[in-house]
Amino acid sequence: MCELLGMSANVPTDICFSFTGLMQRGGKTGPHRDGWGIAFYEGRGCRTFHDPKPSAESEIARLVQRYAIKSPIVISHIRRANRGRICLENTHPFSRELWGRNWVFAHNGQLRGVKRLALDHYRPIGTTDSEHAFCWLLDRVRDRFPRPPRRSAELWRCVRQLARELNALGVFNFLLSDAAHLYAHCGTQLSWLTRRAPFGQARLMDADMLVDFQAETTPEDIVTVIATRPLTDNEAWTVMPPGALAVFGAGERVAEFAA
Amino acid sequence: MCELLGMSANVPTDICFSFTGLMQRGGKTGPHRDGWGIAFYEGRGCRTFHDPKPSAESEIARLVQRYAIKSPIVISHIRRANRGRICLENTHPFSRELWGRNWVFAHNGQLRGVKRLALDHYRPIGTTDSEHAFCWLLDRVRDRFPRPPRRSAELWRCVRQLARELNALGVFNFLLSDAAHLYAHCGTQLSWLTRRAPFGQARLMDADMLVDFQAETTPEDIVTVIATRPLTDNEAWTVMPPGALAVFGAGERVAEFAA
Repeated sequence: MCELLGMSANVPTDICFSFTGLMQRGGKTGPHRDGWGIAFYEGRGCRTFHDPKPSAESEIARLVQRYAIKSPIVISHIRRANRGRICLENTHPFSRELWGRNWVFAHNGQLRGVKRLALDHYRPIGTTDSEHAFCWLLDRVRDRFPRPPRRSAELWRCVRQLARELNALGVFNFLLSDAAHLYAHCGTQLSWLTRRAPFGQARLMDADMLVDFQAETTPEDIVTVIATRPLTDNEAWTVMPPGALAVFGAGERVAEFAA
Repeated sequence: MCELLGMSANVPTDICFSFTGLMQRGGKTGPHRDGWGIAFYEGRGCRTFHDPKPSAESEIARLVQRYAIKSPIVISHIRRANRGRICLENTHPFSRELWGRNWVFAHNGQLRGVKRLALDHYRPIGTTDSEHAFCWLLDRVRDRFPRPPRRSAELWRCVRQLARELNALGVFNFLLSDAAHLYAHCGTQLSWLTRRAPFGQARLMDADMLVDFQAETTPEDIVTVIATRPLTDNEAWTVMPPGALAVFGAGERVAEFAA
């Protein structure tokens, strides 16, 4: 199993606080020693960092913590390998281009037989089930929509349908972004939390760290954080029901599909 | 104009010395203030760092200098924007997946009318001529070889033909890798140098830095460095003739096609 962390915000926001909590689970308070990665959207571009080393000991993780990169959409993952050996190409998140946009994907779980699904445009570079599933999903989106659909809701329904098909193969918790929205699918375990004015204090579970968001935000800021397990112990996280797909845009949940 | 830096080696090698020289040209000894990027192959994976800030002032550039990432193929670029605004998505090198392999591309020059070339599988994310040219080139390789050709030389000839077509549109100095080989095309300006035993000292032109490669290598190491302009002033660089395409593998030049 692995842990996921995502963020959607209405203004570019840094994820230092939540990332600090997650990184502890990468070999310190948690067993996820088999690498980690993070993707930050910035304009139409996307900045990714990957490291097959445990995040709690990673030089690159320390840079990401110190150097507060501000982004409207972030996807991060720490890995405990079950399928696929420990190496850079098996380290989430994975990314591909579709319609001239960066798509990014990170997965927690296992999908039995997913590699029997035929691929066309996109091929995995590594050997994980997860990257195969991502390639298949993008292939299907591309076949269905050779160009981006006019209404976002058409794309959301398509992703929901594909998520449901893959979910039938095993455990499929994932975070996905098409550069416009962040999709969060709960196979078995995923929680989220929206912070907005009036902001308060938050305390990390995995590190001795307290932040006062009031001092760090403006009253207009809206920021949603999504994580496998809640990262703070003094805020009200929403636990997603298994099989649900939530869509986040500009910090808010804009849609949720039940199982 | 921009500056390119590439490396091909027979064992994973760090590029700290050459990168230190190049980074000075990004806003200090050179005018290339409009961002920089670098890609390191590692197994089948590829690690990229991009920054739209001047390299001489970049926090991420300092990490790359300090944290000696070892790789058999590296492509780096510092940018002085002519077409396309300064932002992350316009920062080289660009990358795409083909045949389950990472392809990476960086370009120095301008290509008139390149955006009129129709694209199919790959679409640019940013607005540079360079990324459009890369997408077109990969489209053509993909059409010609739906699977990787058995003999590498077939692919080299295909890349050479495509490089020639694009070169007719303007200035086309580029570095390209298909994860197996490094292609260096000289439109107007590109030089390279192979270091092998007996190793000696090298002195950077752009920074007060001398390295004794004898102390840092084994007698079996073979490392080629390719750069827009020579980076050291006490070694014999080979200046490529305009229109030539050289192919490097495991540190050695394995082919060169004349204009």
